[in-house]
Amino acid sequence: MERYNLVVLGAGSGGLVVAAGGASLGARVALVEKHPIDYPGPSGSVRAMGGDCLHTGCVPSKALLRAAKAAHEARETSRFGLAGPGDPGPQDLGAVMDWVRSRQTAIAPHDSIARFRELGVEVFEGEGRLESAHEVTVNGTTLRGRHVVIATGSRPRVPKIPGLAEGGFLTNETVFGLRKLPASLVVIGGGPIGVELGQAFARLGSKVTIVSKTPHLCLKEDADAAVVLEKKLLEEGLSLFEEAAPVRVEAGGGVKRVTVRRKDGVETTVAADEILVAAGRRPNVEGLNLDGVGVAHSATGIRTDARCRTNVSSVWAIGDVAGAHLFTHWASHQAGVVLKNTLFPVALARCDAGNVPRVTYTDPEIAHVGLTERAARESGIPFTAFRAGFDRNDRSVCEGDSGELFSKILVGSQGRILGATIVHPRAGDLLAEIVLAKKQDLPVSALGSVIRAYPTLSEIHGAVAREVLKTALTPGRKNLLASLAAFLRR
Amino acid sequence: MERYNLVVLGAGSGGLVVAAGGASLGARVALVEKHPIDYPGPSGSVRAMGGDCLHTGCVPSKALLRAAKAAHEARETSRFGLAGPGDPGPQDLGAVMDWVRSRQTAIAPHDSIARFRELGVEVFEGEGRLESAHEVTVNGTTLRGRHVVIATGSRPRVPKIPGLAEGGFLTNETVFGLRKLPASLVVIGGGPIGVELGQAFARLGSKVTIVSKTPHLCLKEDADAAVVLEKKLLEEGLSLFEEAAPVRVEAGGGVKRVTVRRKDGVETTVAADEILVAAGRRPNVEGLNLDGVGVAHSATGIRTDARCRTNVSSVWAIGDVAGAHLFTHWASHQAGVVLKNTLFPVALARCDAGNVPRVTYTDPEIAHVGLTERAARESGIPFTAFRAGFDRNDRSVCEGDSGELFSKILVGSQGRILGATIVHPRAGDLLAEIVLAKKQDLPVSALGSVIRAYPTLSEIHGAVAREVLKTALTPGRKNLLASLAAFLRR
Repeated sequence: MERYNLVVLGAGSGGLVVAAGGASLGARVALVEKHPIDYPGPSGSVRAMGGDCLHTGCVPSKALLRAAKAAHEARETSRFGLAGPGDPGPQDLGAVMDWVRSRQTAIAPHDSIARFRELGVEVFEGEGRLESAHEVTVNGTTLRGRHVVIATGSRPRVPKIPGLAEGGFLTNETVFGLRKLPASLVVIGGGPIGVELGQAFARLGSKVTIVSKTPHLCLKEDADAAVVLEKKLLEEGLSLFEEAAPVRVEAGGGVKRVTVRRKDGVETTVAADEILVAAGRRPNVEGLNLDGVGVAHSATGIRTDARCRTNVSSVWAIGDVAGAHLFTHWASHQAGVVLKNTLFPVALARCDAGNVPRVTYTDPEIAHVGLTERAARESGIPFTAFRAGFDRNDRSVCEGDSGELFSKILVGSQGRILGATIVHPRAGDLLAEIVLAKKQDLPVSALGSVIRAYPTLSEIHGAVAREVLKTALTPGRKNLLASLAAFLRR
Repeated sequence: MERYNLVVLGAGSGGLVVAAGGASLGARVALVEKHPIDYPGPSGSVRAMGGDCLHTGCVPSKALLRAAKAAHEARETSRFGLAGPGDPGPQDLGAVMDWVRSRQTAIAPHDSIARFRELGVEVFEGEGRLESAHEVTVNGTTLRGRHVVIATGSRPRVPKIPGLAEGGFLTNETVFGLRKLPASLVVIGGGPIGVELGQAFARLGSKVTIVSKTPHLCLKEDADAAVVLEKKLLEEGLSLFEEAAPVRVEAGGGVKRVTVRRKDGVETTVAADEILVAAGRRPNVEGLNLDGVGVAHSATGIRTDARCRTNVSSVWAIGDVAGAHLFTHWASHQAGVVLKNTLFPVALARCDAGNVPRVTYTDPEIAHVGLTERAARESGIPFTAFRAGFDRNDRSVCEGDSGELFSKILVGSQGRILGATIVHPRAGDLLAEIVLAKKQDLPVSALGSVIRAYPTLSEIHGAVAREVLKTALTPGRKNLLASLAAFLRR
């Protein structure tokens, strides 16, 4: 039986980082992936791992959003005084999906089986199953690992709605296979995947309706951020049902009819060429034989401690299957934690759960790190929220950004940064500096002490820091300063 | 005679910050501005200060660049698989300049005389002249200041080229007044202003030729950054003459003919509807009576120490007129330094010259802070340069960014960040995080220790930090790690 330092189940973002990192640190690594995909390459096809992120998640969705943004902006050139084409009408989705595929093809070699074998990782194609705390079988072969890392990811959760299965629906796993733009699309779910794809299809020319059971889209975010996005989506012609649930689907005559019930009981029926289900995720735990080996898990995934260890000490779980934060970057971060804990056993590395940014890649983007106002209030943590609007950021004005875009930082005692939310088309990148400051435990004043290139969007951080500073200028201090100035000018 | 804490000459970026800040700190401030401009407002016209930045600099240029980018991108939508309008041909510059003016109008109220009077600043319209170390006259009124702050800015330097004055030319002071797009434009000067406006006019439909006396555009930057921009400009149809100088201009028949001599002596004549001079700046020192009061100055401007003080202890100079860095944000920074040094005399505040970012707002942008490779080599400062390309940044790939875009960090001893250069359409904002890290003296590894949202452009910083980390993995250490791993998997 082959002996490995690490046997990794699942070659998505988490598994790939464990495997590549482990191999580079001299460990012997087996990587088991059941679903690689072939992408055409300039010199033959590339068999790529990468999981949801590359095949059906971040990569195709961000490429689709980029194309949709270009379509939207081309429609809007007249506001700059430019001769514009006007509205080109619904786009050829097949051609757009070719662009999306081209982006996946560009990234695929980095996640290819060939590349990982070159890195020294032993890749096994097939379904892995735990046989004991140290043993995994794949295609009849048994791999013995000092440690076993489960990184099998998640898949769409499909709500039980009468008629939905019969009527047919799309998820993130199938939507990028569409070649014909649906004239109308109902999106079930108002979370990041639903709003991102909903806005993209609307910009490409679909009539889009988003049905969200929560009172605002992007439930995790503070309402002030969500409403800015909601306004923009409404302006762009999307229909939103909030605090509402689809209660049945009827299909017939080539169209699906989704009946939505609002909180007040009122029902509305919306016709749709296609239905996109984006109503949460389920961990991929089936077939792993977790119960046989005694690995504890629940509906949200495998239970782990802050070091990513399960209740079975040689078994670790990271990424979506562990259920905490369902982000590629969280999976990669956890991969680093597991590498330290398994290959340098004295490391005792822990996940940095307080400093995980998240971005909803709509236009505008909503980017967040740390505590929201709601979470801070619910936890009873004292804070003051300081805001600055992009309507006073000269670059934003020069670029003609629209909507009530803002940055908000929650400040605790001693000027500590507790959390931040930015709503702006480039919020995700702008947030990075605050994440660094928070991680380094710099006071919010540090954001105000740097020279920022004018005119850049990043000046917004200085603007928020100045709001904090203003609170130091109390009337008493102002009087004192005026007296000092009067003395000095004698 | 009225007595003030601060008499400020010039209400550009530097002067305005001194005035507003001084007033808010209880000081009595006189602000002298000779050239306010009226912008139409929703409730009557707004008489605004703001200097070059608002009237003829950053604000109109960034608004023009935004419009030009929209024109360029609308031409390129087919790469996303979108039905595109193709090339709309030359744009209606009058309509575009209306957009530019609308952005100035949006920002003008913030710099208005009315607003500054509300803040408690005493604003004098007219030309100020130093009468003594403490006295300034404006329109026959004498203002006595405990301190006098000179912030009169700069204006275009016009090279002596035979025929240029007779033929007529534009500068940043007049170019935004154009209403008709020149079919052809020769730009004299390959610095930031020249390349920004050159690219903008080319994208709007002008045939643009840039003449630069230096071997690369953007001379201050390292050549590896400049060549990426040069390639892009050439792709977009601009003509570049480098190590070349215009030797004469002949005008006649409605067209100007610019003869350019290359380093090798070869002369080429280029026809142009318009000539834009962007060949450096001259400090506005005339009429201030500097010599009469004994304030030392040279061709590059008023001489100051690191505290912004001139040789006359009650006279200070900031911004372009002091000649060090000709940036709005440098002027604002110096304004803060002067406020501290004049109103809190024990402060001894100094300018933070090592942490001044600069951005050339072309597409791609070139953003820089600290030392370039060339400067480090010339100073004999030991460093290693670490690079990461955006071709491996998944967001950049998903957005379809083109060109050899990169981030480079110069690392000194103990992982200290000595400088950084980023070439990317959003480089200016991406640089901000590195400026913070450098200012806080964080080691480059700090950029690698944060969790970065995937997929964002800011992951480039993590990629550079990983390049640094890789150098720690020497062959000897790799062997040691492999032995440890072999021991652990027994």
